[in-house]
Amino acid sequence: MDKHNYHQLTRTFLRLSRFSHLASIASWDMFAMMPPGGSAARGEALAELSVLRHQILTDKQVGEWIANARQEDLDDIEQANLREIERHYQEAALLPESLVEAQSLAGSKCEHAWRTQRPANDWTGFSANLKEVVKLAREEANLRAAAKGCSPYDALLDKFEPDMTSARLDELFGEVKSWLPDLLKKAVAKQEQQALIAPQGPFPIADQRELGLQAMKELGFDFNGGRLDVSAHPFCGGVPEDVRITTRYDENELLSALFGVVHETGHARYEQNLPRSWPGQPIALARSTAIHESQSLFFEMQLGRSEAFLRRLQPAIIERFGMQPAFEEHNFVAWNQRVKPGYIRVDADEVSYPAHVILRYEIERALIDGEIEVDDIPGLWNEKMQAWLGLSTEGNYRNGCMQDIHWTDGGFGYFPSYTLGAMYAAQLFHAARTALPGLDEAIAAGDLTALFDWLRQNIWQHGSRFSTEQLIQNATGEALNADYFHQHLIRRYL
Amino acid sequence: MDKHNYHQLTRTFLRLSRFSHLASIASWDMFAMMPPGGSAARGEALAELSVLRHQILTDKQVGEWIANARQEDLDDIEQANLREIERHYQEAALLPESLVEAQSLAGSKCEHAWRTQRPANDWTGFSANLKEVVKLAREEANLRAAAKGCSPYDALLDKFEPDMTSARLDELFGEVKSWLPDLLKKAVAKQEQQALIAPQGPFPIADQRELGLQAMKELGFDFNGGRLDVSAHPFCGGVPEDVRITTRYDENELLSALFGVVHETGHARYEQNLPRSWPGQPIALARSTAIHESQSLFFEMQLGRSEAFLRRLQPAIIERFGMQPAFEEHNFVAWNQRVKPGYIRVDADEVSYPAHVILRYEIERALIDGEIEVDDIPGLWNEKMQAWLGLSTEGNYRNGCMQDIHWTDGGFGYFPSYTLGAMYAAQLFHAARTALPGLDEAIAAGDLTALFDWLRQNIWQHGSRFSTEQLIQNATGEALNADYFHQHLIRRYL
Repeated sequence: MDKHNYHQLTRTFLRLSRFSHLASIASWDMFAMMPPGGSAARGEALAELSVLRHQILTDKQVGEWIANARQEDLDDIEQANLREIERHYQEAALLPESLVEAQSLAGSKCEHAWRTQRPANDWTGFSANLKEVVKLAREEANLRAAAKGCSPYDALLDKFEPDMTSARLDELFGEVKSWLPDLLKKAVAKQEQQALIAPQGPFPIADQRELGLQAMKELGFDFNGGRLDVSAHPFCGGVPEDVRITTRYDENELLSALFGVVHETGHARYEQNLPRSWPGQPIALARSTAIHESQSLFFEMQLGRSEAFLRRLQPAIIERFGMQPAFEEHNFVAWNQRVKPGYIRVDADEVSYPAHVILRYEIERALIDGEIEVDDIPGLWNEKMQAWLGLSTEGNYRNGCMQDIHWTDGGFGYFPSYTLGAMYAAQLFHAARTALPGLDEAIAAGDLTALFDWLRQNIWQHGSRFSTEQLIQNATGEALNADYFHQHLIRRYL
Repeated sequence: MDKHNYHQLTRTFLRLSRFSHLASIASWDMFAMMPPGGSAARGEALAELSVLRHQILTDKQVGEWIANARQEDLDDIEQANLREIERHYQEAALLPESLVEAQSLAGSKCEHAWRTQRPANDWTGFSANLKEVVKLAREEANLRAAAKGCSPYDALLDKFEPDMTSARLDELFGEVKSWLPDLLKKAVAKQEQQALIAPQGPFPIADQRELGLQAMKELGFDFNGGRLDVSAHPFCGGVPEDVRITTRYDENELLSALFGVVHETGHARYEQNLPRSWPGQPIALARSTAIHESQSLFFEMQLGRSEAFLRRLQPAIIERFGMQPAFEEHNFVAWNQRVKPGYIRVDADEVSYPAHVILRYEIERALIDGEIEVDDIPGLWNEKMQAWLGLSTEGNYRNGCMQDIHWTDGGFGYFPSYTLGAMYAAQLFHAARTALPGLDEAIAAGDLTALFDWLRQNIWQHGSRFSTEQLIQNATGEALNADYFHQHLIRRYL
């Protein structure tokens, strides 16, 4: 049977993917290469391309092709691709252009002002802009919710984590809440018994870069299809054929740049090993934000900060930077596994991280569902930080509810991905360990082939072929749950 | 009076300029940053954007707006912009899409095969591909010639040098032919009387880069709107707001990378100082290929290799790399002004360079006008190289007619720009020297402000507002002629 409509769609999405390619590279360049004077022209060029992509994607014809393609005789792969095509189309076409434009303007305004308002601790100024962003996000959420038949917040969540719901999050995060405060207290108490020695710099940046490249090589990064560069905030960008990861260096801080590289290498290997058989098609893209994060946390937390990996890393550090007390094996391992609850999410260790995420999730859900208002945020933040970590953020907005960029441009629904990613990572690592006897010994010996093959076969090569739920069921034999993350934290920290 | 049609055009060209921005940055990235594995995907992405830009530019509506805008009440600037808009439109819209596509395919095929055919000296293989490229270039030339009422070659020349004709080139190059062979012989003979000492490396690449950055700074490059990087073939890319120049380093060759940087800085300052009052409009673009080249040669040859500049450069070189016999002042100046005729155009000094260009001009003109065929090229090349430089290229295709990339993808009409650029540069430098008393002393003292202000006022700030002829008449008080170039060569080399 003729698949005319389906083929029109694949042609359209191939074309869109080529424009996305240019957007990705120009964005990477903006953060890693561009001198400040290029900023305005680049912003305009990227916005113009954005408008074009939105026009192509939301063309009425695309909707008709989708409706007609459903009647065509598609195989499993094509059906999965059509499902993803429809998801992208719906996501873009549901909103009136006027709302998209208003959101873009309000988001830019809020984000831009935030850059100076945060250091100035100016909640009054910030909240005025944020109210407009929230108002528009609620409009978006309501429109999406009406189309999908779900709650407003769930409709936003779905953009990042298809099929995830707040009911399911409440269940998963509820479990974490039942054991995390106690676990955190015990881990801190245990670590207080041993005095740790901090590494003493300076560690020349050129040497840190070489160390990072060495780590990337050992972790299987394909340099024929990617690069390592520097940016203010580390990220993984580019396209699957040419993945660009970045880190940032501090002469006095050896390990943060290194583990930043290890983290981004996890993202990168996922991208580099996505399927290539369906060029430009949504089915060939990464499954979701949380699955992407699960790969970076698999690399950084499950593998990179494991005792086996750290023991292997230690001689390489000494070889490059010379011996010092901090690099003595026991101290080196303990230093890289230390727990220190604090105000700032991006500096958090893996034990206190979920506290930061669940706090934000609870606030943003209530905000989008209309249960609270912007003015309620600082009070709730302080209350929850006191309860979780015993820290007061009263009047300290800059290190409280103004610390993240996510909400400034309306990215509500993104935060849960971080902790979902940590849970997926732990569950996947457990499954890999079960499937691969002698895994810890192999890691200690630097033989990571089997582990990466397992990831390739179970996660990377599938792209978006399966739903997240199916992907995890296939890979681990069960649905996502918080147990493996819990067990991992107990084993490493108690 | 309403300028509705004109404003439709400026909106369209602003949009096109934003897509050009992305194409420029993605192309720069391809040569300066991209790992090999990204090549295929990048090529496809850029081709897709190319198709889009061509569609927008050649839309029938654009032709109608142009016709209607001619009746609108436009001021001088708007009229000049409309003239340039029409030129871009005509250039793109004259050719049927099937021809453009065939040219792109034949050009890619020929260029790609040339990369291995040139080292293999495989003329037979190369000429088979080149014949197809020439056939299509003649088709293009004939279509353009019919529309413009000129010879086929003149129609191609016009793409790079608007309003230039082969009759005018014959006149200008005819003069050069009347004095260059004798001048070249005398210059070589004079230089043979003094033994020169070559600089001895290694010169660490990091230090060479620092030296290049220092030179760029002294030459007024704006680092807030540009970068220096590395690529296999040096070029100036990016956009006026963010100019990307490149060079290549060889540990044993200090001065070629440095003068490459000086050359590209000339291109860069032209771009960085183009007018900003007409965003995205063709009137704000550089005037022509030859005027662009005149700026790079102004920087490299007129200024950079002048005795005054070299005397100022010498201590900076010694400070960075230590003293050695080659850096003794007299030797340093003479080394950077040496004349050594050879086979390769890109390695040529400024005295023998015109020989390479005029030879190519005569062959490509005859080829496009149908007076000779591809099979005649090697014989003519050998004959002309013998006559000009006393060098035989018989059977030596790789260092003869296969050395350049220009013809492989149909870039006929480009070569004259190099020598036109050298003539413009000499004429401009003469005019600047006349206008600025004490210029040589200022250069020797490192005070280049007045010189750059003169270039800004006379060339850079005008973009494409005036025709090339008018621009040069305004800047120098007379039409382009070969005399100043002749006088410059006599003064420096005899």
